[in-house]
Amino acid sequence: MMQCLPIFAEMITISQRGAQMPSSPIRKLAAFADAAKKEGVKVYHLNIGQPDIETPSIMMEAVKHADLKVLEYTDSAGILSFRKKLATYYVTKGIDVSYEDILITIGGSEGILFAFMACLDAGDEIIVPEPFYANYIGFAMAAGIKIIPITSSIESGFALPPIASFKEKITHRTKGIFICNPNNPTGYVYSESELLQIRDLIKEKDLYLFSDEAYTEFSYEGKVKSTLTLTGVEDRVIMIDTFSKKYSACGARIGALVTKNKSVIEAVMKFSQARLSPPTLEQIAAEAALSLPTSYFDETRAEYKNRREVLINRLSKMEGVFCPAPSGAFYVMAKLPVDNTDTFCQWLLTNFRYKNATVMLAPGSGFYTTPGLGTNEVRLAYVLNETAIHEAMDCLEQALKAYPNRQV
Amino acid sequence: MMQCLPIFAEMITISQRGAQMPSSPIRKLAAFADAAKKEGVKVYHLNIGQPDIETPSIMMEAVKHADLKVLEYTDSAGILSFRKKLATYYVTKGIDVSYEDILITIGGSEGILFAFMACLDAGDEIIVPEPFYANYIGFAMAAGIKIIPITSSIESGFALPPIASFKEKITHRTKGIFICNPNNPTGYVYSESELLQIRDLIKEKDLYLFSDEAYTEFSYEGKVKSTLTLTGVEDRVIMIDTFSKKYSACGARIGALVTKNKSVIEAVMKFSQARLSPPTLEQIAAEAALSLPTSYFDETRAEYKNRREVLINRLSKMEGVFCPAPSGAFYVMAKLPVDNTDTFCQWLLTNFRYKNATVMLAPGSGFYTTPGLGTNEVRLAYVLNETAIHEAMDCLEQALKAYPNRQV
Repeated sequence: MMQCLPIFAEMITISQRGAQMPSSPIRKLAAFADAAKKEGVKVYHLNIGQPDIETPSIMMEAVKHADLKVLEYTDSAGILSFRKKLATYYVTKGIDVSYEDILITIGGSEGILFAFMACLDAGDEIIVPEPFYANYIGFAMAAGIKIIPITSSIESGFALPPIASFKEKITHRTKGIFICNPNNPTGYVYSESELLQIRDLIKEKDLYLFSDEAYTEFSYEGKVKSTLTLTGVEDRVIMIDTFSKKYSACGARIGALVTKNKSVIEAVMKFSQARLSPPTLEQIAAEAALSLPTSYFDETRAEYKNRREVLINRLSKMEGVFCPAPSGAFYVMAKLPVDNTDTFCQWLLTNFRYKNATVMLAPGSGFYTTPGLGTNEVRLAYVLNETAIHEAMDCLEQALKAYPNRQV
Repeated sequence: MMQCLPIFAEMITISQRGAQMPSSPIRKLAAFADAAKKEGVKVYHLNIGQPDIETPSIMMEAVKHADLKVLEYTDSAGILSFRKKLATYYVTKGIDVSYEDILITIGGSEGILFAFMACLDAGDEIIVPEPFYANYIGFAMAAGIKIIPITSSIESGFALPPIASFKEKITHRTKGIFICNPNNPTGYVYSESELLQIRDLIKEKDLYLFSDEAYTEFSYEGKVKSTLTLTGVEDRVIMIDTFSKKYSACGARIGALVTKNKSVIEAVMKFSQARLSPPTLEQIAAEAALSLPTSYFDETRAEYKNRREVLINRLSKMEGVFCPAPSGAFYVMAKLPVDNTDTFCQWLLTNFRYKNATVMLAPGSGFYTTPGLGTNEVRLAYVLNETAIHEAMDCLEQALKAYPNRQV
């Protein structure tokens, strides 16, 4: 008999969910970008929704003047005065909620995970129009639930697929529909008529409506209708918000879960208590942001609108590139004349240089769960200033000409 | 045919896990404490591990001088320089790790959840000596895993139960053992011999060892041995750390998951990427804390040691009260001469006043999963200064005399 202890010690395996969990398409190429930067190459980050717009100084000032002797836990629901101010912000936007309908979360990310935990059991299903924000897969995997995709197409500008196609996917395990409005990654803004169709469907089929409204302040052709204003389904709507994008404060990790459904609030509160509280300093910063005048959003919106035009204009002039002109958020999905955008995006970082620079994009496949879809699409975030966008587009234009596996 | 839409709309149900999720025993009486405070009553909070010790000023100073134009996401693994400094901190404590073995998490809470997600699948079991930190139940429920308790008793000072009793509980679904050392809520510090027994068991039975070492700097009769120094099981140990208690910075929500198991690091990294990054400002604060000299811990340890003596001394003089003298963390479990500590702790907040003050304690039952256990125990956190502890103990002493359902 042989003893093989060291090998035996190596045998312990990780979980199936740990193994199956996908890498973030937005971050999985980060090591290649780091390597390029180490060589002194400039990398234009259009892969991630990390805006270069300055965080309002009022936020950091609030932290500097907080004068805390002890950096204490806050209430698990979030700082009370902060929740009250956030309720007022929603009311001014025509959304009738009180602070009791609001729980502060650690980014929109935690809000989504808590919504899944509180409303769905392992094995339950939600229907999500694809392409969708890739991290939903991670939260679904963590919660043990299944995402059933309904494909929207780049050719139709990623409009809501017909309601009949939702109905076809509904099983006895379907518990909700999940939308992101304005949409990440497509930039599509759902029309009032589309939202009313979804409302009727969730009412008819006894479903929840989960709505990620992270980009609600970034709509360039009119206001976005919040799902919280849909009538007759008040206790079916769980809205997820975040301070990351609105105030260019992604590192704050402050979001909110908002719902009129008291049972959901109570259940989420128990998950909130288990993790004790959201970060204290960032809550102070976020509360201060709510004192900004609405002109703050007018300015940032105008800035993004301009960037969008620059980006779309440049993309549409590139041979073989197709992209719709989305009306919200700060993302564009574009179809590129390449064999496979996973390979292409990696090649951009490892092999391509133009004026000692290159561009980082998020491969499209990670935003779809239907196999084979999105393989010639990329997501571009217009989070850099106009000059940087031009320079990044110069890189992309040259890269598409130089790429050995270009397709017509 | 009647239409009953409003009632139909009320029918949507929350998840089973949302319904079954227990409320935190540490926080569930918060509403009663708030009501007492509104009446102008002073409430001594011995229910929660929220120290009154000042957060080191170096932490807030680092945030004030960070001079960030944009509050950006950090790397999902945490700020690189911070991870490197944290590795150095462990090395000075005799723990041989590199920054690549460390992922920064949103508090110890997230570290535990991520460890469960990466190592265990839904339905898997872990064995945990009880009483244990109540929020483990919440993380286990979120991860869909089962906690199998092994009872340690107050009479034996909550020492590790015999290894034979662990073996009896092992099934084909058992994937790990979870300890907290020094222990919350008991204050017990595992001896080297106990840790070696656990090591041999996890090796023999092919298990993970999850170790919550939040209180490692608070050991009053000698150093604590980290599970990361156990030889022959390097890739089975997942250590969870936090900055909350060490630096009296609970609101920072900064912790770490540390393991030499590369597959676990890779899997946890995918869950980390899904939630983007830990809070930026608090990481800056935590990194600064690592510059403190070791004398910082000597001072705080001396302060807690004194508080422990005051608390134990007062409790041991109360008729019918029994508590062991624990050698670590800043908690004591005590047996009280009352019918039920859930009722008693609520009564303290709603009915009892002494010099217009009362004391808040955490009922013991929430720290056990075996039904019926801990019902005459409470957890007390000695996180207040000596004077406040004396005043809180005056309240408890009087309350035990006045309580109508006192048992002999």
